[in-house]
Amino acid sequence: MGTEADGPLAIVAGAGVLPRLLAEGERGEDRPHLVIAFDGIAPDWIEAHPHEVVPFEKPGRLLRALKGHGIRRVCFAGGMQRPQLKPLRFDATLLRWAPRLLPALRGGDDALLRLLAEFFEVNGYTVVAAHDLSVALMEPAGVPTRTQPTDADRKDAARARAILGALAPHDVGQAAVVAQGLCLGIETVQGTDALLRFVAQNPVRMPDPEGGRGVLVKTPKEGQDARLDMPAIGPDTIRHAADAGLSGLVIEAGAVMVLGREEVVALADAAGLFILSDAP
Amino acid sequence: MGTEADGPLAIVAGAGVLPRLLAEGERGEDRPHLVIAFDGIAPDWIEAHPHEVVPFEKPGRLLRALKGHGIRRVCFAGGMQRPQLKPLRFDATLLRWAPRLLPALRGGDDALLRLLAEFFEVNGYTVVAAHDLSVALMEPAGVPTRTQPTDADRKDAARARAILGALAPHDVGQAAVVAQGLCLGIETVQGTDALLRFVAQNPVRMPDPEGGRGVLVKTPKEGQDARLDMPAIGPDTIRHAADAGLSGLVIEAGAVMVLGREEVVALADAAGLFILSDAP
Repeated sequence: MGTEADGPLAIVAGAGVLPRLLAEGERGEDRPHLVIAFDGIAPDWIEAHPHEVVPFEKPGRLLRALKGHGIRRVCFAGGMQRPQLKPLRFDATLLRWAPRLLPALRGGDDALLRLLAEFFEVNGYTVVAAHDLSVALMEPAGVPTRTQPTDADRKDAARARAILGALAPHDVGQAAVVAQGLCLGIETVQGTDALLRFVAQNPVRMPDPEGGRGVLVKTPKEGQDARLDMPAIGPDTIRHAADAGLSGLVIEAGAVMVLGREEVVALADAAGLFILSDAP
Repeated sequence: MGTEADGPLAIVAGAGVLPRLLAEGERGEDRPHLVIAFDGIAPDWIEAHPHEVVPFEKPGRLLRALKGHGIRRVCFAGGMQRPQLKPLRFDATLLRWAPRLLPALRGGDDALLRLLAEFFEVNGYTVVAAHDLSVALMEPAGVPTRTQPTDADRKDAARARAILGALAPHDVGQAAVVAQGLCLGIETVQGTDALLRFVAQNPVRMPDPEGGRGVLVKTPKEGQDARLDMPAIGPDTIRHAADAGLSGLVIEAGAVMVLGREEVVALADAAGLFILSDAP
């Protein structure tokens, strides 16, 4: 938890709803904060907050901005699109990091985020987890929806988990969809919404027309740094899961955030989907 | 290799181009043959060949048809869609197999195909591999295209292979796409063409605009019975790979069939794609 004594918080804003929720949470508590976004991938909503948009190529400028605002704590939030770097614009700071940055850009999400975190840490900043700022975003174990998962749904979830477990060491896959034992989709760098659209657009004839219609399982990757990239579901996840005709969603309790919880549960109830927040 | 002495061959026709090529190959050599397809998923082209369309629920009828044609050898060819079974129509033969068939329908492709093969074998038939009928379909190690893979392409291929290797024990994934280290897609039950359409429709900003544009790697799953479901590429694979903007394809030499090879290589050359047939 941050206190006033820690000084203002910097939120490094990636894609999605999470960074906005965090910034609004800080403002709601009247805590000073600064939103940081990168040139070319800065979301519009940051205009409503104190913010700095910096070129990814010039981290020296970013460090000066943080210092100017008296920042000591940095929070990463939201998926980080890979920047298309212009190497001729690299400042001296980035040139020193280039030998490690360039390989990290070719790795999975974790590699890049870990390097960014290390960059802030060696420069004296504390990296704060998004879920430490807003405990309300974490879903306790249980089923918050009216619809409950069936035994068949739990079996499908177990198979999806096994698939994600096999992929984790390769830094691939935060989510997978399984229906009646058939794997209908595995999340790749395009994210969960793209996975669910794929499942919606590529229907598979099910062995049992009365059987389970498919479960989305979302977990953190093994070894994923929860401070940097905690998986999350939100209202769009539910809408896409309903479009894909699924039975429900399984998230890992304490390790997947629910953004806009009230709306998420209402949408799931309206669509007859279950949500199971399950111990790993 | 089949000889006249083995009697006519039965080709169990699944989806795709392979069963038709095999049937035409048999007819081209003036060898008697019989195409078997299942009610509801029988392709049109079988009309041009001696054929029997049988309900999946009545394997007893299938066995009688095979006996009537003097069949002793059966070849599985093409992807097998899961039939939507009507249990009330099960004949006595299928009822005996039901305790094993129903779980197999919920497993991966391999489970169902292995059970089908076992069904023919215990009834006295020899299960023949498609590639043993048509050696011409196998691509020797090498690069048949004008475009050659770069070192970056080979690196992407190695990462795709590692991902497929991790999934193999879970009976998922014959193909994956990796570009500049990023995993852009993993094949699920919808097949390779659906995977490539997903990659085409969900472009990812690449770290290096001049770098590798992505490699499709296609391999047999570990433990996959090559007699039953040998992976294959064909002209459509190349068209979809070109639409997805890939650099090229890597197939496992001796383990992936190339259907319509001349057209495949011509299409790849026209699109500037490489094909690498590589030792595992």
